[in-house]
Amino acid sequence: MTDLKKIVLAYSGGLDTSIILKWLQNTYGAEVVTFTADLGQGEELEPARKKAEMLGCKEIYVEDLRETFVKDYVFPMMRANALYEGVYLLGTSIARPLIAKRQIEIAHETGADAVCHGATGKGNDQVRFELGYAALDPKIKVIAPWRDWEFKSRTDLIEFARLNQIPVTKDKEGEAPFSVDANLLHSSSEGKVLEDPAVAPPSIVYQRTISPMDAPDKATEISIDFKEGDGVALNGEAMSPATLLTALNKLGHDNGIGRLDLVENRFVGMKSRGVYETPGGTIYHVAHRAMESLTLDRGAAHLKDELMPRYAELIYNGFWFSPERQMLQAAIDQSQKDVEGRVTLTLYKGNVIVSGRSSPKSLYQEKIVTFEDDAGAYDQKDAAGFIRLNGLRLRILADRDK
Amino acid sequence: MTDLKKIVLAYSGGLDTSIILKWLQNTYGAEVVTFTADLGQGEELEPARKKAEMLGCKEIYVEDLRETFVKDYVFPMMRANALYEGVYLLGTSIARPLIAKRQIEIAHETGADAVCHGATGKGNDQVRFELGYAALDPKIKVIAPWRDWEFKSRTDLIEFARLNQIPVTKDKEGEAPFSVDANLLHSSSEGKVLEDPAVAPPSIVYQRTISPMDAPDKATEISIDFKEGDGVALNGEAMSPATLLTALNKLGHDNGIGRLDLVENRFVGMKSRGVYETPGGTIYHVAHRAMESLTLDRGAAHLKDELMPRYAELIYNGFWFSPERQMLQAAIDQSQKDVEGRVTLTLYKGNVIVSGRSSPKSLYQEKIVTFEDDAGAYDQKDAAGFIRLNGLRLRILADRDK
Amino acid sequence: MTDLKKIVLAYSGGLDTSIILKWLQNTYGAEVVTFTADLGQGEELEPARKKAEMLGCKEIYVEDLRETFVKDYVFPMMRANALYEGVYLLGTSIARPLIAKRQIEIAHETGADAVCHGATGKGNDQVRFELGYAALDPKIKVIAPWRDWEFKSRTDLIEFARLNQIPVTKDKEGEAPFSVDANLLHSSSEGKVLEDPAVAPPSIVYQRTISPMDAPDKATEISIDFKEGDGVALNGEAMSPATLLTALNKLGHDNGIGRLDLVENRFVGMKSRGVYETPGGTIYHVAHRAMESLTLDRGAAHLKDELMPRYAELIYNGFWFSPERQMLQAAIDQSQKDVEGRVTLTLYKGNVIVSGRSSPKSLYQEKIVTFEDDAGAYDQKDAAGFIRLNGLRLRILADRDK
Amino acid sequence: MTDLKKIVLAYSGGLDTSIILKWLQNTYGAEVVTFTADLGQGEELEPARKKAEMLGCKEIYVEDLRETFVKDYVFPMMRANALYEGVYLLGTSIARPLIAKRQIEIAHETGADAVCHGATGKGNDQVRFELGYAALDPKIKVIAPWRDWEFKSRTDLIEFARLNQIPVTKDKEGEAPFSVDANLLHSSSEGKVLEDPAVAPPSIVYQRTISPMDAPDKATEISIDFKEGDGVALNGEAMSPATLLTALNKLGHDNGIGRLDLVENRFVGMKSRGVYETPGGTIYHVAHRAMESLTLDRGAAHLKDELMPRYAELIYNGFWFSPERQMLQAAIDQSQKDVEGRVTLTLYKGNVIVSGRSSPKSLYQEKIVTFEDDAGAYDQKDAAGFIRLNGLRLRILADRDK
Repeated sequence: MTDLKKIVLAYSGGLDTSIILKWLQNTYGAEVVTFTADLGQGEELEPARKKAEMLGCKEIYVEDLRETFVKDYVFPMMRANALYEGVYLLGTSIARPLIAKRQIEIAHETGADAVCHGATGKGNDQVRFELGYAALDPKIKVIAPWRDWEFKSRTDLIEFARLNQIPVTKDKEGEAPFSVDANLLHSSSEGKVLEDPAVAPPSIVYQRTISPMDAPDKATEISIDFKEGDGVALNGEAMSPATLLTALNKLGHDNGIGRLDLVENRFVGMKSRGVYETPGGTIYHVAHRAMESLTLDRGAAHLKDELMPRYAELIYNGFWFSPERQMLQAAIDQSQKDVEGRVTLTLYKGNVIVSGRSSPKSLYQEKIVTFEDDAGAYDQKDAAGFIRLNGLRLRILADRDK
Repeated sequence: MTDLKKIVLAYSGGLDTSIILKWLQNTYGAEVVTFTADLGQGEELEPARKKAEMLGCKEIYVEDLRETFVKDYVFPMMRANALYEGVYLLGTSIARPLIAKRQIEIAHETGADAVCHGATGKGNDQVRFELGYAALDPKIKVIAPWRDWEFKSRTDLIEFARLNQIPVTKDKEGEAPFSVDANLLHSSSEGKVLEDPAVAPPSIVYQRTISPMDAPDKATEISIDFKEGDGVALNGEAMSPATLLTALNKLGHDNGIGRLDLVENRFVGMKSRGVYETPGGTIYHVAHRAMESLTLDRGAAHLKDELMPRYAELIYNGFWFSPERQMLQAAIDQSQKDVEGRVTLTLYKGNVIVSGRSSPKSLYQEKIVTFEDDAGAYDQKDAAGFIRLNGLRLRILADRDK
Repeated sequence: MTDLKKIVLAYSGGLDTSIILKWLQNTYGAEVVTFTADLGQGEELEPARKKAEMLGCKEIYVEDLRETFVKDYVFPMMRANALYEGVYLLGTSIARPLIAKRQIEIAHETGADAVCHGATGKGNDQVRFELGYAALDPKIKVIAPWRDWEFKSRTDLIEFARLNQIPVTKDKEGEAPFSVDANLLHSSSEGKVLEDPAVAPPSIVYQRTISPMDAPDKATEISIDFKEGDGVALNGEAMSPATLLTALNKLGHDNGIGRLDLVENRFVGMKSRGVYETPGGTIYHVAHRAMESLTLDRGAAHLKDELMPRYAELIYNGFWFSPERQMLQAAIDQSQKDVEGRVTLTLYKGNVIVSGRSSPKSLYQEKIVTFEDDAGAYDQKDAAGFIRLNGLRLRILADRDK
Repeated sequence: MTDLKKIVLAYSGGLDTSIILKWLQNTYGAEVVTFTADLGQGEELEPARKKAEMLGCKEIYVEDLRETFVKDYVFPMMRANALYEGVYLLGTSIARPLIAKRQIEIAHETGADAVCHGATGKGNDQVRFELGYAALDPKIKVIAPWRDWEFKSRTDLIEFARLNQIPVTKDKEGEAPFSVDANLLHSSSEGKVLEDPAVAPPSIVYQRTISPMDAPDKATEISIDFKEGDGVALNGEAMSPATLLTALNKLGHDNGIGRLDLVENRFVGMKSRGVYETPGGTIYHVAHRAMESLTLDRGAAHLKDELMPRYAELIYNGFWFSPERQMLQAAIDQSQKDVEGRVTLTLYKGNVIVSGRSSPKSLYQEKIVTFEDDAGAYDQKDAAGFIRLNGLRLRILADRDK
């Protein structure tokens, strides 16, 4: 066993990370520094502080990172219109780098020599945490208890908890019917009752949205304002990034928006089935694309579309802090300075409908595109030459292949 | 003026192409062969034959191409999950190559030396028609009256029609409030009342769908079966391609599915605003992706996603018959042989919700992904090495950059 | 004829652009401002000034742009390792945007309302000039005499010159046996004696290099130092960009380096055959790649390789000033800050052989890669897990396809 | 220890794989089936058979796979003009899938339950072998002795050999000064004396080529004929794939062609330095590109260039049998049917100079490209419209950004 003095643990305050906390103390005889972040998961943080104290921790970090999360992670990603496998808005993936970064910073502040996360050995999150650690501190020791410890079942864990005076509430004794991750961008549910992809999810898994069927039979009109590619106001009212996303989450929730049931390909090589809810993110994504449609040049827009799948894959696979993600981000950010203006949307029973876009930076020119007299803004005769030269290579080819 | 003997005209039977017909006769003193195709636009074809006869045509082609259209154009495109600029299902674009191909074949059958289309000089369709002609017959003469003729206004056209005994119904005297294109995959509306992208489309433009708000407050469950990447059955009933798409159009129509209001970038260099309705295509697109999510390997799926924007751009720009589109098609088709199984969907007021997928070719293995005991199907210790070597370059980099 | 008052002409001082100058004066009755730049083409500039004066010009711009050319155009392009169609170093393409930019700036300084270039209607240069003009001044009038004027043959031109007191030297009376473009990066030759791609170029076309066969039978060892991705010193001696490229040109010339005979695809749709000489650029390109091989992370390097063909195509096609080229440049530049160190090269009869690379920013770690004992720097057992998870999807696939 | 009955070993007959053979027998008590292939590495195979017999093997496979290797692996890869990291012709990478495939086939023929290779735990070859195994038989047990066994040094291995009656020749007692892999496409050298990338390789590492300096001061003219993208004749004489490559290797060797000294990025995450010699492959690569330059449409050629880095990376990383490599191959092969004709080359002291290309399928049309009168084959006026519409979006952008 490596000789460790201090370990920074990503700590939720829940039963599982409390067991990890104790196991670290027992196994390594090391001091454990807990780090609990509010990323908008919707849970109280103070209980986590109390529990860490109770478990004997002296250095306890509890932080509200919601604004950082949205400003420096969610919004930059949204500039790319990132979708993994065509549909997934990357809600879990994008939170991991921030947690990894703060853990490493706290390790440096506290002189810790190791970091620890509570992700399992089958999922993507272990990769995302550990690639983040690797990129930010190449020497730090990494502990992944779920891959390493001796426990074989839920029963073993509960027994360990009891033996170590960790309180176990009744409902935690058995296995949860599915596993949940949540932050300000989304909530994900996986496992157990969701493991047959032929069967629709039970309604119990949904936490952030009501069903489209249950949403009011009434359209809600909203507007989002953008500046330099980021959302800055809702219905004309200026808002900070996290405030805006929180408000959109409420709107999305109420209108049954942002549910996704999918089978996806994990980086570790298997397919899994997940149910995601991204109410505000779904609205924001649609609005951002609509804003770009008016203000982004075609060359920039199409290049972005071609780069996007790679960019999304990098985030999904945990390479947020890689040079290639940073290169793609540089390209994307370069395109966003004039993505500015207002998008109006109709929200209705699961639908996000663009109803208008306007911008001081619009590239749409009615005087050119009009079916009416354009006063010479566009010479239709140009099209003949344009087509003939675009077709020249095809004619030469056809001529050969005759 | 070039000396032409016979011209094959893409003829709808409407006022505009009738004016073109007469103008070709007058201008070139040439015989005009009309070609009228049923691509599912929802109009009677026999009136076009009668009108062509009345205008003195001797060779008149009227053809039902719906099955060919769906089988050889729509379905191959759908295998790619093609979306132009992230959202547009390419309903107009994909019809043009088939029309161009038949025109050229008819030109060869009838010994014609020219082909003619009725697309304007500002749009994409002129490019799509003429690149198709170029690729299929490098020597054929191409006539695009809207770019060439002397008429300056609607009034000029109506006067020409009157002078030439072309019947003009009352409602055609003025300009239409917007311009429409339709086929079995979609209906598009552009121009006039739609020219301000800040203003939502008037409900009058919608032709193929009712509004989500007007759709019944009741979910409709359906299933689509796929084989080798193509839809083969609806609700367990085997159907030909066009029959399947027709049935999906009805379902989409009734449930308010497939409306799209967007600003897009035309190949000729301007932005335009269009309203598209693709009821059945929207359902089919969602179903196809869901089928792939279960049966396609990650490497294949991600490569497809990366190639898709280019593929969609090629179709949008009119390069269906280009070698590069054929290369991409070869790659895409190579991936589809095991895209087989059943997708169940819930249709509800504009929503297309995947509720299940199953397949004899499924790559989803519950025994590997399960949160439960997997009996050794996956060794979590492997993840440690996997992550360490994926992170090795990042650690070396971090080590340098310290 | 448009009413023009002042035209900025890209003027070489040669016979052809002198004819253009006069033709502009005659045709438009406009004042002509000449712009003659030293981009390293190896010609005296003062005669151009004299000739312009003689032809009645009052505003005459003669500028040495060699440093700007290399620093702001050649080096940024070289950061991308740009090769068009796998082999061409884009020597002509990269000079056009700078000329276009200065023409537009001069137009603004002098209040001119038009710009004019001397490129023909079949080539790429007309596109590069005019897309540059379009991106920098959307309203400026563009004149391309070779596409517009009435002259049909060399004889017509010579006659026009004689009638207008433009001196015609004996050797310019007939057509040149091939056409040449040159700047500090390269020299290109096209046309006439080169038009049969089955026949090797006559030795007369080569202007910048001796043949490998004629080069000394003796190796020359050199070193190039890089900093932030750009060359900064030769053989340890710090040099400005243009000085460095000039010195490399001499070395390349003397050692028979940088000849290229190719068939390429022009943007206007045809294939052409060109002979290019890029002596210094070829050496620099090899050195830059070698420097990157030591200092660039794999993720960055591979992304650059994937983006490169598109980047090169954009430059070749004339889209230097487009948003998408700027996006790609942002990505590329982001990767270059640690491309620093020394590359040693052996030059010998056409060969550029990398003989060593070293860097304070090296990512090569002998202690990891060594066949010898690595003291635990790399755990070979990690590879087992790495491979098993990389192969997991392939095993699942094989399992299905049995 | 897993219970194994029969293991198929990739056996060279050398000391190291003989030690492995014995170690497998001792460790697993299993029967070992040896597989020794002639891939053109230039060694006698019969000694391997004798040695396997002597070591007690009963099932011994010795096969000449040179034609299969070139026809089904090298040539398909060359159709893509594949270069890893811009320069490496993938000579080692491309041989591994074939060996893996034959091992699995032999395992099935002989009823073996495991396969074994002799690659180390730091390199790419272990990945290539094992991903091949995974894709071809998901259940087969894989043994990688270099990662698993207890030996810590060369001395341990030699002692094991002595104890087990494996003959050890004098020169094998110590460590080799570098490690070599060879086949008909190339020879690679790595490690030990090559581990400092700042120092040029000693001449002793080169095995397949003489130095350009030592090559005759005399040009050699050759021609290669292609059909459907593959080489079919040398100097007009029809040859099988392996015969052609063998002949080109001789020509390359004699003219000092195909040496490469590089730092590359391994899939397992580290940089390594290698020296490669690919004499015939280098000539073939240049010739294939030249043949394509004449016969391949621009759209196809540029798409190939964009796909190539990914394709090369897949082969380098060992994903030959992956769906995505097969998709890319389908796209590439689709493009090759008219890559046909003759390329003439001048070989001279390390240089491969294209001196001509001709083809019945040429797309080069002198009558269009000519500087002379083209009799109307190309209308220069078309270029004006072509440029104006290509520039339209740039003008709109400039107009906005004013």
